[in-house]
Amino acid sequence: MKVVIVGGVAGGMSAATRMRRLDESAEIIVFERGAHVSFANCGLPYYAGGVIEDRDELLLQTPESLGARFRLDVRVRSEVAAIDPDARTVTVHDLASGDTYVESYDELVLSTGASPIVPPLPGVERALILRDVEDVDRLVEQMSSARSAVIVGAGFIGVELAENLRHRDLDVTVVELADQVLAPLDPEMAAPVADRMRENGVRLELGTQLTAIGDATADLADGRTLPADVVVMAIGVRPENALAKMVGADLGERGGVVVDDQMRTSVPHIFAVGDAVEKRDAVGGGAAMIPLANPANRQGRLVADVIAGRPVRAKSSSGTAVVGVFGLIVTATGWNEKRLRASGRPYRAIHTHPQSHAGYYPGAQQMAIKLLVDPETDAILGAQAVGGEGVDKRIDVVATAMAGGLTASDLADLELAYAPQFGSAKDPVNMLGYIADNLRTDSTRTVQWHELDTLVAGGASLVDVRTADEFAAGAVPGAVNVPLDELRDRVGELPAGDLIVHCQVGQRGHTAVRLLAGLGRPAANLDGGYKTWDAGQRAKAPAGVS
Amino acid sequence: MKVVIVGGVAGGMSAATRMRRLDESAEIIVFERGAHVSFANCGLPYYAGGVIEDRDELLLQTPESLGARFRLDVRVRSEVAAIDPDARTVTVHDLASGDTYVESYDELVLSTGASPIVPPLPGVERALILRDVEDVDRLVEQMSSARSAVIVGAGFIGVELAENLRHRDLDVTVVELADQVLAPLDPEMAAPVADRMRENGVRLELGTQLTAIGDATADLADGRTLPADVVVMAIGVRPENALAKMVGADLGERGGVVVDDQMRTSVPHIFAVGDAVEKRDAVGGGAAMIPLANPANRQGRLVADVIAGRPVRAKSSSGTAVVGVFGLIVTATGWNEKRLRASGRPYRAIHTHPQSHAGYYPGAQQMAIKLLVDPETDAILGAQAVGGEGVDKRIDVVATAMAGGLTASDLADLELAYAPQFGSAKDPVNMLGYIADNLRTDSTRTVQWHELDTLVAGGASLVDVRTADEFAAGAVPGAVNVPLDELRDRVGELPAGDLIVHCQVGQRGHTAVRLLAGLGRPAANLDGGYKTWDAGQRAKAPAGVS
Repeated sequence: MKVVIVGGVAGGMSAATRMRRLDESAEIIVFERGAHVSFANCGLPYYAGGVIEDRDELLLQTPESLGARFRLDVRVRSEVAAIDPDARTVTVHDLASGDTYVESYDELVLSTGASPIVPPLPGVERALILRDVEDVDRLVEQMSSARSAVIVGAGFIGVELAENLRHRDLDVTVVELADQVLAPLDPEMAAPVADRMRENGVRLELGTQLTAIGDATADLADGRTLPADVVVMAIGVRPENALAKMVGADLGERGGVVVDDQMRTSVPHIFAVGDAVEKRDAVGGGAAMIPLANPANRQGRLVADVIAGRPVRAKSSSGTAVVGVFGLIVTATGWNEKRLRASGRPYRAIHTHPQSHAGYYPGAQQMAIKLLVDPETDAILGAQAVGGEGVDKRIDVVATAMAGGLTASDLADLELAYAPQFGSAKDPVNMLGYIADNLRTDSTRTVQWHELDTLVAGGASLVDVRTADEFAAGAVPGAVNVPLDELRDRVGELPAGDLIVHCQVGQRGHTAVRLLAGLGRPAANLDGGYKTWDAGQRAKAPAGVS
Repeated sequence: MKVVIVGGVAGGMSAATRMRRLDESAEIIVFERGAHVSFANCGLPYYAGGVIEDRDELLLQTPESLGARFRLDVRVRSEVAAIDPDARTVTVHDLASGDTYVESYDELVLSTGASPIVPPLPGVERALILRDVEDVDRLVEQMSSARSAVIVGAGFIGVELAENLRHRDLDVTVVELADQVLAPLDPEMAAPVADRMRENGVRLELGTQLTAIGDATADLADGRTLPADVVVMAIGVRPENALAKMVGADLGERGGVVVDDQMRTSVPHIFAVGDAVEKRDAVGGGAAMIPLANPANRQGRLVADVIAGRPVRAKSSSGTAVVGVFGLIVTATGWNEKRLRASGRPYRAIHTHPQSHAGYYPGAQQMAIKLLVDPETDAILGAQAVGGEGVDKRIDVVATAMAGGLTASDLADLELAYAPQFGSAKDPVNMLGYIADNLRTDSTRTVQWHELDTLVAGGASLVDVRTADEFAAGAVPGAVNVPLDELRDRVGELPAGDLIVHCQVGQRGHTAVRLLAGLGRPAANLDGGYKTWDAGQRAKAPAGVS
């Protein structure tokens, strides 16, 4: 058996090492175009920022170490230029020597990854990307004499870079075509992330784009010019599908290589894994591009199992992701509200702002969590969480619940580890379950922050059940203040017609809804309370305001 | 509808407030024997240690605040002395006034909790317990003039108290009848916890007990005398079942009140929740005493739903728990190996020692995780984890996977949030899944640390595949050292007969097993590697050695 793998790093190296563990006698060759076959690509921004000090930390394995341990034939600086699927050969260009040669295979695995998108702007040849160790070397070198940087794109890589370039004391601007940072989040969840970035000196130019790159500047669409000793393109990635296309393998709408649940392309004896392939979406069931390390690793191992004749099949993918932003932990899994709305799929949104651990134990931090639920089946469709300690824990629990087919209401029953420094007896995830259960059983009714204007225009009255002090510190325009503990006695004072109650985060509002229902005054609760509404207002701020 | 609740705190207060939210018109009376109806019982050790500085932080709600918000009639210092289930009345003793009166009910909820076990030792009247705010007041007062403390019991409360009393600079000894601390853990997982306690100046007396308590001392069974200005009993709790017994309600073997899945006792119109009741064990299906805050809260809410006529049912309980011990995070869920072995249930044990986050990002900490798996069904039976950051996250994920019915191998497919400061592309939980999958598919074979002596005595040879430096720094007696990267070339040097390979944590050992299998020399891998074996040796240290 001779297995040829095109491309190293997550998918390729997982395939190669697993292949060896399954078959000591196989011949396994890995061709890698770059100089490094196994490096910490998720660590590149942190090396740029100096958080990872030693460049050697980025280099996980070498051809020599992989040869000694796994008897892999790893050839770096070796570009596969062509594939002959009938002869089962690849044509390899040795970038060091300039030689070209042909290598045969029994099974071929494409792990070609995805490459950063670089738009055809005037001056764009000066822009950097951040994909491999050579890229970060170029960035570090340019930074040594730079005072300003423009990062194009406020996705995960863009915000990580912004933080790390601020660590290097650069004047940093992030330019993003969308009206918000971090597209996987909904706007009201992204607003506190933008706040945190601005608080740390990052200039955000949202809802706009670059039109040209000058020698030490970059021009915005509105005519303004930004200082830009360094320009980095972090708009997103597209699958590297050239080889797959060359052999006529089926490609998806977004260019991803189409594979079955055993990573087979449409061409016999050619498999593909990682960022280059379409994954099956766990929520929608369709094809999805999910360029993340976890599924790439998983697929690499799986393709080796398939080639070794094991009866394994890939699961669908929910795209759980996390990014750190100046101390904030920002996470998402599954679908967001924007996508659900755009697809016309019914959903129910839940926002809450629980403490990371018991409030009576020092150091608790408030987080924002959003859960999206199928109103018919109570299935969990997605979640987002933003905050400090323990945010990654909660999204992992929700992602696991989704994988296990638990409903939103089932989250109330999860027994999560509780001691006062680690959580609450009613954990944030349990709270999501309690709220979902209240909605599912019609025990409460909520309205969303973005529905409020329309509802008030339609005649609904807003009752703020927080304390007078909280009300005085900032309130929704037009709301009347009747603190929850006075509500029973003052129910007669409430305006006639539809009522919407709200508190700071939604919990007292729920109690108010139940109380008013008991007194014959049905009301809806503003989901997530003042805090979510307020974040939504900031999300709606005009584009470009910073 | 008139609902009477006996006992406040987690179960009782959750029931009362939920009851109000479901029924604005119900009459709800809560009788609480103590002075506080809603306090942070899990915070008591941390107030004793000064981590929680302000005593008021412990007091979450008052009868007044609960009256204002939820129109609850909360009566503290009020002991329910008798119940007449036919007349549906309770006899209440007002501890403040000394008066006794009768109150009727439509539905009665017993939330009487569990009380610390105090053995009948000479001098035991001087010993303290830690159940409520008055208890911690007594402890704090005694500590003010104390220099030494003996804590009896190395369970969760005992080890929390030990840490907190060390914070107060007391000379602390923990006396525990078992040979290990923290009975929910298996001995090799508890060993590093004991190490950490000793490193922080706690004297551990394991495998022994107190025989008497003197004026400022405590006597051990072996005749030694410990300094003991303060003695705290933290052996465990027993359900407070006096009222349930009085009305003839069914009790379980361990004294827990028997309830159905709607929290009904065997006596009509009497419900029971929380630490006093038997829960249904998620792993074994039988009855279990699980005195934890999370299920108590859950049951409190559930009983209100039942009384309000909602079709809800309690789920079974896996007893997920966590405790902090001088910076270590110690967690467990489900059954441990001791219990599986004692019950004769087949199981497979997996140990691994992954990093909390990507090794190339600063600050990664190694943790120990153990997974117990049903070898027939691949079901997850339990897990334990000990380490630094992120240990609680991993146990919560495993507990959620158990609740969702995921198999051990399914853990490999979980998409958990990964960025280098939060995890690894192959998360510790994924690694458990990979190992489980290898065992399930007979891709590897492991032996346990406690089987090694017998196997070696039976003729098996031990091959240490770590580097020469690692081997020199400490090795299993009798092992020969052949580093993994030399194994292919030196396979001829290996001893004849059965082979057991091992590395530091198990990963290189697995690669060695696969390599040797490919070369026709089947071998088993020492599960968890040298690290688990070494912890096991310390676990087997003679009782009382400290």
